[in-house]
Amino acid sequence: MLEKSDLEVLEENLPFWKGATPAEKEILTQGTMRFTHAKGTIVHEDRNKCTGLLLVVSGQLRIYIIGDSGKQITLYRLFERDVCVLSSSCMIRNISFDVHIQAEKETTMLRITTDSYLEAGKSNPQIPKFTNEIVSSRFSDVMWVVEQIVFMSLDRRLAMHLLEQAAIASSDSFAITHEAIAHDLGSAREVITRMLSRFQEDGLVSLSRGGITLLDSSGLYALT
Amino acid sequence: MLEKSDLEVLEENLPFWKGATPAEKEILTQGTMRFTHAKGTIVHEDRNKCTGLLLVVSGQLRIYIIGDSGKQITLYRLFERDVCVLSSSCMIRNISFDVHIQAEKETTMLRITTDSYLEAGKSNPQIPKFTNEIVSSRFSDVMWVVEQIVFMSLDRRLAMHLLEQAAIASSDSFAITHEAIAHDLGSAREVITRMLSRFQEDGLVSLSRGGITLLDSSGLYALT
Repeated sequence: MLEKSDLEVLEENLPFWKGATPAEKEILTQGTMRFTHAKGTIVHEDRNKCTGLLLVVSGQLRIYIIGDSGKQITLYRLFERDVCVLSSSCMIRNISFDVHIQAEKETTMLRITTDSYLEAGKSNPQIPKFTNEIVSSRFSDVMWVVEQIVFMSLDRRLAMHLLEQAAIASSDSFAITHEAIAHDLGSAREVITRMLSRFQEDGLVSLSRGGITLLDSSGLYALT
Repeated sequence: MLEKSDLEVLEENLPFWKGATPAEKEILTQGTMRFTHAKGTIVHEDRNKCTGLLLVVSGQLRIYIIGDSGKQITLYRLFERDVCVLSSSCMIRNISFDVHIQAEKETTMLRITTDSYLEAGKSNPQIPKFTNEIVSSRFSDVMWVVEQIVFMSLDRRLAMHLLEQAAIASSDSFAITHEAIAHDLGSAREVITRMLSRFQEDGLVSLSRGGITLLDSSGLYALT
């Protein structure tokens, strides 16, 4: 059963909600459930499962891909009020890849089943229009990653990433493993450890067990 | 003025054509022109120009991005009967990146202006639906590139690329520069030259001025 606050989340974050008919809203709310996933939970990993549309109420999701060797690269992150459609990529024609989605913090989300979403979309063209806008937006996110990988050296990317993590944490000190950074940047842990040590020698950061403190943000910024 | 054969190309390659009204077809044909570009021509490079929808009649287009340093990476190629929508990305909400498009061979194409395409799409929902399907398809192409870059070593990627080029040329010998390969793979010319020399030492290829001959396709295939 959805709470009143859940309905408000739907209304505020789905741009088609206000123009939807009562019947469409009924289909959507019937197909919506609230979930809370613990930090670290894999929320979606198999395209065939067709998890459904995810609307982040609170927390943080990481969307990434994994290679045969276990190597990973983060495509983008979703935060409060963001909508994930690739978790429902089974409904999007010509999307032939799959992504993994992990809760990076305890994450509460509303999940709309693919069936309900498609059903409501049959009578309301604003719904597939919304899907397509999100797909284009994620396509742009991925192109940004391609530009980073191909055109930027790893030290620049690492400097940017550290500044980004500090912004997300709202603090110059944050908990993160070298492996997690490697997974974000599509690199190997050893390479990240080596480069972080160099940053430490240069007085840019201070490394501790399971965490990093930025000592010279403007120095890092200069690297980017 | 469009020729009868051009109308046939529109009919055969635009899945919404048959269901379109005479008025919609009129808008589309009025906005369509045939162009032939010489090999090497840059067909599109500026998002703000909004070149329009391109339908390849014959020839070959390369879609790529360029970094500040001039480094390039090829995202995908389009061949006879393929449709390019990113040349008209100005009309697609949330596509915030730009691509460059080059004719790799003498290429004849039909170009539908963005205005005509949008106008016809106002009354025919199959038209924006088609746009979105092509966008998703290109998104999948780009994800394949991301997987290649992040998860595969450059020698595997080079081996695959040479086999692909031979397939496109329908011959084990084809004209290609080391720089063109570097641009395709998002690498540097020196790196490609070094790796090709190693392939030559291993008896996989024979290098000549401006061209490559595959001597051992199954050996290259084993590398992938």
